[in-house]
Amino acid sequence: MIFDQLISRSVITDIIPFSLLATAEEETAQADGSLILASVLLSLVAIYIASKIGGELCSRINLPPVLGELVGGVVIGVSVLGLLVFPETGATAEDSLIMTFLEKTTDLEPGTAEAVFEAQGEVITILSELGVVILLFEIGLESDLKELLRVGPQAAAVAVTGVIAPFVGGTAGLYYGFGVPAIPAVFAGAALTATSIGITAKVLAELGRLNSKEGQIIIGAAVIDDVLGIIVLAVVASLIKTGNIEVSNIIYLVVSAGAFLVGTILVGRFISPFLVGMVNEMKTRGELLLTSLVFAFALAYIATAINLEAILGAFAAGLVLAETEKRKELEEQVVPVADILVPVFFVCVGARTDLGVLNPTVPSNREGLILAAFLIVVAIIGKIIAGFTIFGRPDINKLAIGVGMIPRGEVGLVFAGVGSASGALSPATEAAIIVMVILTTFVAPPFLRVVLPEAAETEAETSKQEG
Amino acid sequence: MIFDQLISRSVITDIIPFSLLATAEEETAQADGSLILASVLLSLVAIYIASKIGGELCSRINLPPVLGELVGGVVIGVSVLGLLVFPETGATAEDSLIMTFLEKTTDLEPGTAEAVFEAQGEVITILSELGVVILLFEIGLESDLKELLRVGPQAAAVAVTGVIAPFVGGTAGLYYGFGVPAIPAVFAGAALTATSIGITAKVLAELGRLNSKEGQIIIGAAVIDDVLGIIVLAVVASLIKTGNIEVSNIIYLVVSAGAFLVGTILVGRFISPFLVGMVNEMKTRGELLLTSLVFAFALAYIATAINLEAILGAFAAGLVLAETEKRKELEEQVVPVADILVPVFFVCVGARTDLGVLNPTVPSNREGLILAAFLIVVAIIGKIIAGFTIFGRPDINKLAIGVGMIPRGEVGLVFAGVGSASGALSPATEAAIIVMVILTTFVAPPFLRVVLPEAAETEAETSKQEG
Repeated sequence: MIFDQLISRSVITDIIPFSLLATAEEETAQADGSLILASVLLSLVAIYIASKIGGELCSRINLPPVLGELVGGVVIGVSVLGLLVFPETGATAEDSLIMTFLEKTTDLEPGTAEAVFEAQGEVITILSELGVVILLFEIGLESDLKELLRVGPQAAAVAVTGVIAPFVGGTAGLYYGFGVPAIPAVFAGAALTATSIGITAKVLAELGRLNSKEGQIIIGAAVIDDVLGIIVLAVVASLIKTGNIEVSNIIYLVVSAGAFLVGTILVGRFISPFLVGMVNEMKTRGELLLTSLVFAFALAYIATAINLEAILGAFAAGLVLAETEKRKELEEQVVPVADILVPVFFVCVGARTDLGVLNPTVPSNREGLILAAFLIVVAIIGKIIAGFTIFGRPDINKLAIGVGMIPRGEVGLVFAGVGSASGALSPATEAAIIVMVILTTFVAPPFLRVVLPEAAETEAETSKQEG
Repeated sequence: MIFDQLISRSVITDIIPFSLLATAEEETAQADGSLILASVLLSLVAIYIASKIGGELCSRINLPPVLGELVGGVVIGVSVLGLLVFPETGATAEDSLIMTFLEKTTDLEPGTAEAVFEAQGEVITILSELGVVILLFEIGLESDLKELLRVGPQAAAVAVTGVIAPFVGGTAGLYYGFGVPAIPAVFAGAALTATSIGITAKVLAELGRLNSKEGQIIIGAAVIDDVLGIIVLAVVASLIKTGNIEVSNIIYLVVSAGAFLVGTILVGRFISPFLVGMVNEMKTRGELLLTSLVFAFALAYIATAINLEAILGAFAAGLVLAETEKRKELEEQVVPVADILVPVFFVCVGARTDLGVLNPTVPSNREGLILAAFLIVVAIIGKIIAGFTIFGRPDINKLAIGVGMIPRGEVGLVFAGVGSASGALSPATEAAIIVMVILTTFVAPPFLRVVLPEAAETEAETSKQEG
């Protein structure tokens, strides 16, 4: 309560005992500061409850929990309850149920509510951004460069086709068929590219098929896919930033994204033994986690400084550290950190989504719904085409591979969040992407169960226990 | 980079594609947002490096790592390097090396640097506050109500005397002897009360004496001490807030602090089986950690709303959850979260400390140094007196118990941070408290080694391996 009074925006040039107690004005500033922490704590309580209720309900009906977090965000966000709303969308403290609640339970006054509301929005936004940074760090850590190389040409063909087909189909269709401007069309097309490793792996495990030929190709392709998706994200994000599509620009970005990723991995391989050696010498708590985060945050900063994404740096750091002997230990320590930060990101993405644009009774909304239907068709067909690029292996269930690649998850939602926040996506297009992500993950598990029958009992039992 | 553009303070009432790209003004806002994340990432890199270098150096010279984090903060803070400075102290973006660095490596312009600097200061401040909340939650979780009761009257007598003697001696001495105003005198006296459980336990373990009679009484007293210290902190903080010392006020605060702690523990005991049952039913990641944090943050909010400290709520939540079967699992999961947030608090405490006030060549600074010398003497004598309150046990080394209680750690630093941020402490008094914390922990280990000889080899060996 007390020690956070300094957050107040007033500049206290000289700290003198009792100065904060001296005047009524300064008491207001004081209330300000102590209440920002209270509003952040309340927001986190709302976010965690929404993410857990949503996640648990989804997991019970056999859907990926991450969708539940998103839907939970929608429920507490601007669309439904208005608990978690953001100043940048034009909302004021009056639109925020949390601020209303604070005014009723504490000494927050309407005059200072706006400043507290803005500061709380800023802090929650940064926490959600740290959430994606940690998420991509974790995905990098769970990825395996050697596995990426071992699954070889089959997985690569599936991955590349599975990125190009929906990207080209989606972008061209939106641009030529629906008259969507170039940049949002490219962005929506890009959001169709990346398969969710987590969702796909989970579905395969539930079917006891993780270690089948099909399962291995799907996972391998999904890993490559994820890297491609991140490069696509970096490219698209930078395109939006510079505002035009020039071939030289694309080449520069592809080269710099590739060079950054390859460069940090090569340089990182020289640095990582040094980092591991240093960690082994350390004797104080958190030595591995903090050293790794310093590396990840520094790369995230460098990526930002060369006009790429912070998340690309975090992903590269994860890939590098995945190659060290500390991988398992680090993965375990990152889990609780990701558990508290990642839901903030997904819930915020949901909370920012105004589902009002999908109400079909409003004529102007029909565009979003039609876009969503189109994106879903392209998302499914694009990945099924990818499955059929497998060559020289008649024993492989090609349809199952395509279906296994259908679920779009984390990365698709990252696209929706990035696009929404950048202002590149119209509300209709953003909502269409989120509906696409939700529906592809809804559709894939039962569909995959049909085309790839459950494995023999023993294998299925084992995988259930693992799950 | 892109998705954080919405943090910009400009209100975008309607998100239209390309709107952010349309005007130069909005491009500035855009740079703003993406650079806040970059500046927060850089600040965290600086904080983590400072905390690790400081912590490791201290651990190598047999001092508690937390002191190193504090000193690391001093080094990167306003006193030395100026990497981590805060807008509330009157600093501007020009005073911050991180902002200078950002301006050189990114497209941050002087015009927007001030806004980025302020937002970064706000976010880092809230992160450091979440750090103390998590720290006190962890301390609560590691405390043991039953152990608190079992160590019985001996430990209680030591604890109560060890709180009252330095508190009364310090407060009275500063008020009457040094002419310090009442509230800072009370605050500095209160900062003398709480023994550091962590530091004391570590020193005892190094001596192989953790399970000796003396060791058990010290640990028991330190646990009680810690609870008393937190109540004292809540009382003192609330006194500063209301600005006067009235007996009815003190009684109200003691009663409400006690009632809150006892009440939440009693009510919490009814709620915790329900929470544990719910966690056991959950199937998604982070179920235990997020449920526990919802409980802790909600109690922290309630404590704030009834004019107590947020940290008191978090501590009570920790005590309640320590009684459940999930304690061990939860402790493990809280460790990485504490590892990334707690150093932010200690480093920020150090960074805000202007050690310039301790320069003895400046005449006006001599006050702080004299205060520090006085506080150190009171801190040591107060605890030694406490050791001699042990009654009816001639077999016990009473001097060793007093010496074992000398180190002040986390809670003492929390007092310094709370007091500094509230403006209740003059820079001299604050610096004197920090010097007192540093010196008591410097002095205690060698002193304890003299009065409490190392245990038999076997026991000592075992404890070394454990350490």
